Amino acid sequence: MDAKVRLYVDQPLGRGQAVAVGPDQANYLFAVMRLAPGAGVLLFNGRDGEWLARVADAGKRRGVLLCEAQTRPLLAPPDLWLLFAPVRKERTQFIVEKAVELGVARLVPVTTRYTQSERWRHDKHVAHVIEAAEQCGATFVPDLAGVQPLAQVLKGWPDGRELFWADEALAGQSGAMGSSALTGVIAAPAAILVGPEGGFSEEEKALLRGLPFVRPMRLGPRILRAETAAVAALVLWQAAAGDWR
Amino acid sequence: MDAKVRLYVDQPLGRGQAVAVGPDQANYLFAVMRLAPGAGVLLFNGRDGEWLARVADAGKRRGVLLCEAQTRPLLAPPDLWLLFAPVRKERTQFIVEKAVELGVARLVPVTTRYTQSERWRHDKHVAHVIEAAEQCGATFVPDLAGVQPLAQVLKGWPDGRELFWADEALAGQSGAMGSSALTGVIAAPAAILVGPEGGFSEEEKALLRGLPFVRPMRLGPRILRAETAAVAALVLWQAAAGDWR
Repeated sequence: MDAKVRLYVDQPLGRGQAVAVGPDQANYLFAVMRLAPGAGVLLFNGRDGEWLARVADAGKRRGVLLCEAQTRPLLAPPDLWLLFAPVRKERTQFIVEKAVELGVARLVPVTTRYTQSERWRHDKHVAHVIEAAEQCGATFVPDLAGVQPLAQVLKGWPDGRELFWADEALAGQSGAMGSSALTGVIAAPAAILVGPEGGFSEEEKALLRGLPFVRPMRLGPRILRAETAAVAALVLWQAAAGDWR
Repeated sequence: MDAKVRLYVDQPLGRGQAVAVGPDQANYLFAVMRLAPGAGVLLFNGRDGEWLARVADAGKRRGVLLCEAQTRPLLAPPDLWLLFAPVRKERTQFIVEKAVELGVARLVPVTTRYTQSERWRHDKHVAHVIEAAEQCGATFVPDLAGVQPLAQVLKGWPDGRELFWADEALAGQSGAMGSSALTGVIAAPAAILVGPEGGFSEEEKALLRGLPFVRPMRLGPRILRAETAAVAALVLWQAAAGDWR
């Protein structure tokens, strides 16, 4: 493979398909990466798999790439959502990046009682999702929902989707709410919920415990940071019920 | 619990035990955190669990803490090692931090053919291990081995310890070397090996394939970054064979 660059584009991909390139991507491809006509680029759009394309026209502010051959089919993730409370900046980026790598269909940022409320910059996080997909070789790009209060997301919860609640309070406990991490995990459609650094409030815990679609999930005997809990829960779910089986 | 600070100390802890505090910790406790005599501090040393101590003497360059009561027993991890190739700075820190959270006994940095060879700063990473333990509530501090070439570590491999090799090349494959992530995982003593960003060389792969104690481990159909592979492998091992069961 002679392609050094892997790029997300929001255009159809297929044999012989011409893909127009706008100012930002033209700058990156032709000025930063110095790709000349004939150079290979890997493209994906989240729907048509990954394609090898060649530079057909390299302008200062625009260009054209021509799709040559599919290099990878689309690998769609299971219908798994990740609900997470935004934490500190790099750690939120980390949750987003790892969720893309591990394979989720939808990311749902939720605010909770103890969420550190920096402003949620949706556009920036959409860019993180795309960047993570570009860098890890993903052919699918998870949907990023707008940020909403947890209670509101739970209120409009869709039928038939179980919600696995990675409950920090279960660390070190056994029995009762503390079902083992790998038992009772069921297949898609499903969702995982991880809280903020401060955990959930008593009110939120009571709400979660009372909902029929919520299942507490235990993640070992140690206290995990929010982003570690997110990754651990995704890995366990993927291995037990998802496409890692 | 009125203690806001959690500190690692390299001294015995027990009821009534006096713990001497040196210049750096005195500065942190009494100047930065402004703890006065009588204030509570949580202490752990990796051996005696976690203790609530009270400031007995708060000097500019030294002080004394008095252990009052054990707040948590020692939670030792399973006898699991993590062998990892140093990657870029923050991602290496991340591997170290997450391994402490998830529970390993020993961290073994190894150099490989494609290791990006920044100088390995052992002291700095020992500090990261301790910091991670302080922040995640761990009572155990994993041992950090000195960096060594992978081939050398494999040459002196101890009897009876299986090595699970998170082989990037198995992503997307099934059968053959690609045993499922959760089958064949056996209990401690064990070790996990993850490679650098560029993966292992053909020579290294041949070496690993030829060793009787090496077992390839498949981590789903997607390509994972080195640090994600480390976390995923640790989680799967802990859930299948470790103390997350």
